[in-house]
Amino acid sequence: MSTETLILDGKAVSDDLKVKLAVKVEQLKAKGVTPCLATILVGDDPASATYVRMKGNACQRLGIESRKIELKASTTTEELIAAIRQLNEDSAVHGILLQHPVPHHIDERAAFDAIAIEKDVDGVTTLGFSQNAFGFADYPSCTPAAIIAIMDYYKLPIEGKHAVVIGRSPILGKPVSMMLLNRNATVTICHSKTNNLGDIVAQGDIVVAAVGKPKFIQGEWIKPGAVVLDAGYNKGNVGDVDYEACAERASAITPVPAGVGPVTIATLLKHTVEAAERTLKS
Amino acid sequence: MSTETLILDGKAVSDDLKVKLAVKVEQLKAKGVTPCLATILVGDDPASATYVRMKGNACQRLGIESRKIELKASTTTEELIAAIRQLNEDSAVHGILLQHPVPHHIDERAAFDAIAIEKDVDGVTTLGFSQNAFGFADYPSCTPAAIIAIMDYYKLPIEGKHAVVIGRSPILGKPVSMMLLNRNATVTICHSKTNNLGDIVAQGDIVVAAVGKPKFIQGEWIKPGAVVLDAGYNKGNVGDVDYEACAERASAITPVPAGVGPVTIATLLKHTVEAAERTLKS
Repeated sequence: MSTETLILDGKAVSDDLKVKLAVKVEQLKAKGVTPCLATILVGDDPASATYVRMKGNACQRLGIESRKIELKASTTTEELIAAIRQLNEDSAVHGILLQHPVPHHIDERAAFDAIAIEKDVDGVTTLGFSQNAFGFADYPSCTPAAIIAIMDYYKLPIEGKHAVVIGRSPILGKPVSMMLLNRNATVTICHSKTNNLGDIVAQGDIVVAAVGKPKFIQGEWIKPGAVVLDAGYNKGNVGDVDYEACAERASAITPVPAGVGPVTIATLLKHTVEAAERTLKS
Repeated sequence: MSTETLILDGKAVSDDLKVKLAVKVEQLKAKGVTPCLATILVGDDPASATYVRMKGNACQRLGIESRKIELKASTTTEELIAAIRQLNEDSAVHGILLQHPVPHHIDERAAFDAIAIEKDVDGVTTLGFSQNAFGFADYPSCTPAAIIAIMDYYKLPIEGKHAVVIGRSPILGKPVSMMLLNRNATVTICHSKTNNLGDIVAQGDIVVAAVGKPKFIQGEWIKPGAVVLDAGYNKGNVGDVDYEACAERASAITPVPAGVGPVTIATLLKHTVEAAERTLKS
């Protein structure tokens, strides 16, 4: 790695967010409101169980209540939606997280869209996506929001830059593209059908990897001085970026782990606290 | 213009669409349903009045009923929304078109979003945008859908191509980008803050101009052999593309007028007929 490369420390960004959140949680409690995140885990995928546990622990450390709903793998779409509706109607619950992926037989989109928009703190609903794309979402998808938060924390400019996003999923590639666009980046969205991917990535002043393939983004593709944000997290604790090789050329890069991941969780907590604050105002 | 350049004839595409629609309108009428589009014009902008009249005439020629709502320029957002809600509740109305731009004092987004999603045949609602972005909208925005329809009519390939979209509005640049992406193009979205616009446009196998500035897209920017789609319509009957110069290099290009425009209107009619068909099925 070049000694000049800035390591974008997700832990530092998330700690900064959490310190501010702790104050807000105290203020809410003084007013009789304890922010509460309900997490829903369907089935027994070990990775998903770990994620849910991490989010629950993160809540606990900040004094946010977490309510764990665990449903068996054979849960139907209708049963899952019924569970979500119960949480929608429960005024003690401020945010709802449906851990994904859900088992294949479930209509994930229908389940996401059953979440009331005012409790969609993970930013997964169809309506939430377009509110974010149009620049007025209360709760943008957490990983895209985390990527922007990291750039803002380190004062890395977005406006006028060429951002290349690799991936086009509804909760990552598409929303982060819209957020970068709304911050006045020129945005190129790539995917599995993109020709000459390396040549396109090489144009990126900002490169966002959201492809779900370990070490997929090659060092030789990176424009010298680019900012590289790795939203991937694959088996063996590796991201979507070939870290060592990309860090050689990047001016700034997120590691995996301790890059985008912790900030994503902190963003989820931030949205939960904001959702609790909104119940006071309304 | 190169003699090899294919002129993408919007009139031919829209006539093809309308022939198919005429049959469907007959079938609907035989079942006792006359498709009906309600158009709302606020104020007395002459261009807007012309557009509404063109759309009404197009309905009439196909046997689609058009109901014209004309509101005075001083109409408030609340009054406009009340008028829209009345149309939402009117079972004889299948589609609602709010002609834009509306006067500045009106909250256009709130007005658009008052349109019931099942009557949003112009594809302007916030929810409709994300349904389109996720690939399951009943009624994508008409101009983006027209651009795709033109490419399909002429069997111009989209998958694997690099599409460059200039413009990022909620009803044109953003949705057409998402539609091209969903058709497996690599998509670059440019705008007023884009640096080196010419260099970026020069990469486009497909160039979509949606910027609202007359003759803005220069011939020298166009990659030889590119397909150029001009969604602009500016004073003096000119598009966003410097047509003569761009046609020299493009392999295919839409003229202005008689390019994207007529297909946009035909798409609006198509959506209205589909909305009427859905009331039979439900």
